[in-house]
Amino acid sequence: MPHKVLVLGGGFAGLSAVRALRKANAEVTLVDRRNFHLFQPLLYQVATGSLSPSEISSPLRSIFRKQRNARVLLGEATHIDATARTVTLSEGTRLEYDTLVVAAGSVTSYFGHDNWAPYAQCLKSIEDATEMRRRIFTAFENAELEGGAPNTPWLTFVIVGGGATGVELAGALSEIARKTLKDDFRSIKPEMAQLILVDQAPRILPAFSEHLSSKAEATLFSLGVRVRCGLKVTDINSDGVKLQHADGTPLEIPAKTVLWAGGVAVPTIVKELVRATGAPVDSRGRPRVLPDLTLPEHKEIFVAGDTAALDNLPGVAQVALQQGDYVGSVIAKRLKSSAAPGPFHYSDRGDMAVIGRAAAVAKIFGYEVAGWLAWYIWAFIHILYLIEFQSRIIVVVRWAFQYLTFSRGARLITGPDHEKSS
Amino acid sequence: MPHKVLVLGGGFAGLSAVRALRKANAEVTLVDRRNFHLFQPLLYQVATGSLSPSEISSPLRSIFRKQRNARVLLGEATHIDATARTVTLSEGTRLEYDTLVVAAGSVTSYFGHDNWAPYAQCLKSIEDATEMRRRIFTAFENAELEGGAPNTPWLTFVIVGGGATGVELAGALSEIARKTLKDDFRSIKPEMAQLILVDQAPRILPAFSEHLSSKAEATLFSLGVRVRCGLKVTDINSDGVKLQHADGTPLEIPAKTVLWAGGVAVPTIVKELVRATGAPVDSRGRPRVLPDLTLPEHKEIFVAGDTAALDNLPGVAQVALQQGDYVGSVIAKRLKSSAAPGPFHYSDRGDMAVIGRAAAVAKIFGYEVAGWLAWYIWAFIHILYLIEFQSRIIVVVRWAFQYLTFSRGARLITGPDHEKSS
Repeated sequence: MPHKVLVLGGGFAGLSAVRALRKANAEVTLVDRRNFHLFQPLLYQVATGSLSPSEISSPLRSIFRKQRNARVLLGEATHIDATARTVTLSEGTRLEYDTLVVAAGSVTSYFGHDNWAPYAQCLKSIEDATEMRRRIFTAFENAELEGGAPNTPWLTFVIVGGGATGVELAGALSEIARKTLKDDFRSIKPEMAQLILVDQAPRILPAFSEHLSSKAEATLFSLGVRVRCGLKVTDINSDGVKLQHADGTPLEIPAKTVLWAGGVAVPTIVKELVRATGAPVDSRGRPRVLPDLTLPEHKEIFVAGDTAALDNLPGVAQVALQQGDYVGSVIAKRLKSSAAPGPFHYSDRGDMAVIGRAAAVAKIFGYEVAGWLAWYIWAFIHILYLIEFQSRIIVVVRWAFQYLTFSRGARLITGPDHEKSS
Repeated sequence: MPHKVLVLGGGFAGLSAVRALRKANAEVTLVDRRNFHLFQPLLYQVATGSLSPSEISSPLRSIFRKQRNARVLLGEATHIDATARTVTLSEGTRLEYDTLVVAAGSVTSYFGHDNWAPYAQCLKSIEDATEMRRRIFTAFENAELEGGAPNTPWLTFVIVGGGATGVELAGALSEIARKTLKDDFRSIKPEMAQLILVDQAPRILPAFSEHLSSKAEATLFSLGVRVRCGLKVTDINSDGVKLQHADGTPLEIPAKTVLWAGGVAVPTIVKELVRATGAPVDSRGRPRVLPDLTLPEHKEIFVAGDTAALDNLPGVAQVALQQGDYVGSVIAKRLKSSAAPGPFHYSDRGDMAVIGRAAAVAKIFGYEVAGWLAWYIWAFIHILYLIEFQSRIIVVVRWAFQYLTFSRGARLITGPDHEKSS
């Protein structure tokens, strides 16, 4: 009877774990709430109308069609019994496992202020991205409907969070306001939109050097984005954002559109894993894993990707891909009774953030690059990693078209308000 | 002061009316609830995972960017005052007009059984299409979760309505079940899915000749679709569809997925137009227009497209395009005080319905074509009519890719259930 491997989550970590098991004598089951793998690094391009949801998503079933030892189940894992070694899905199905891999990713955190959620749109899922897109383009429409009132809060956009996502959103918003929509309106001038990026930290892009961080800020400035660091958000509501300087001075920004590129937290199933195993957690609630990515006292349970707390590694695709691959190969080696592999080692190939048209910052194998070269490297690597051949071609067409014309082919305003259109 | 033309609706009729006014000394305002023009004839391809929403949609603002006498407003017209010549939008804006063009399209009708709506997904808007896509692909997922029960209602799909849309949906469903998903599952065989197309009429595709209609039925049969004509739907609920033969014999089809390609009705704003003008209506509630597409006693109000009742013309894109163009040119001629143009004349260039891979039926300039030739003509014409250059390229890539591999790049299951994904 083959060894049963159960993988929770079809993100980068889960995907690479299943792939690494393709030659193992195992029965691999991948459970995900969604029927597709999402290429999260390009989610902001859906939120800003450059790409369509399907262009950064790939059906999990197609990915594993030819891996006959793998099956995909669409479901939500809700209960873990670490003694009986079973996982139960929300609709009741109970799945047995010999080895469990938890790669459940992360969810958005409003740092205890869930009441901000309706006013500060986050960016984790495809639905978040299309909702963010709806809000951005609807804001310009509402300003036009108002007839061109000066300083309207419909034309003020606040981005909270100065990490890569926040910077990427700010750069894309600038291009939308200054280029894409330039001649589209009759009453308003979209290029007059106020774009404000706020963060509590002293500088943006803390994962990069101070040098790259100030390069990025200068580029954003030239794109019309005002970067306000050292400001703590104290409230977000339908009128805008309330902030506080380090010395306590309050600041209010009236704005109808607030985009949340803030913190992350662990999903519910990870809390359930912690409950079921008594695993120790870090300050963000992530289980602390051993150097081989297993849980203490549960060498049959692996945790990989954003979900795992190990050596302060960042929550990026590269870490998840490498951890998933490592976990899969450890399991495969165990099944062949090969020698136990060494601990997980992260090979840092670099990090990058795109700011705008042919503008990015990157550190690659220790080198720092800024400007158009970084942007071309960014575009090349992302195209390369897009899972499906078809998506690659279409994304190249979209990007080439947008590069030449500034148009955004996917700026639809869709959503639940329009369930029945006339 | 320029003449104010107000156009309600950015579908084929509204679009071509605004375009025909591009050289007129008029101030043209186009009002639509959505910020994009939707290429409705390809909506079923979104519903079946072949194309993405943005690939059949084009932002109205981009379309009219260079037409300086036209402006676009995103809003919902709710009130018409035909004496004061004003239209009020839902959020309160009041728009004056000298000439009004109502091109509001049509909405889905359940023939008085609105309680069927939750169980029988219709196909009018982008949201309808993504919801239909969600239901189709979720049905296969749920059958797999069940573990392969024989004759499960999750693998029975009923399509109600044997017009072009119903036939196109049935053909696409067959390709999904028999080709796209062929090797994707481990417990179920998607090709065992039951596909049933029902209609009350004695034959499918009543707009075509009996010869083409039986050709289409034979092609559907070879694709595994069972066509059941002469059956009246008496109920649709969560268990399936209840039908009745002409002689009263009841028939029940247990099915979890019912797709509605049935009737159409007039949108609310058209009822408001009828109330405001006292215009006579046909049996479906559409205002009866004079031969120049104006309303009796209101020569300043035109009605075009699906909304207008004239000579029993079908509700297809060709009619709407020609009527919109005619209306625009009549208004332009009036403004130049040229001779009044003759009545609207529909030039029937043909009609077509696609059934499956390289299979379609068409009548073109009086000739009847079936099979692969009809399909190639269909594909060529649709590509040609897609509004944006970018969309054309991407759709060609998608179709070529799907033609070669049977894969469907846009088979995402998305929707409100997943507003916060973990």
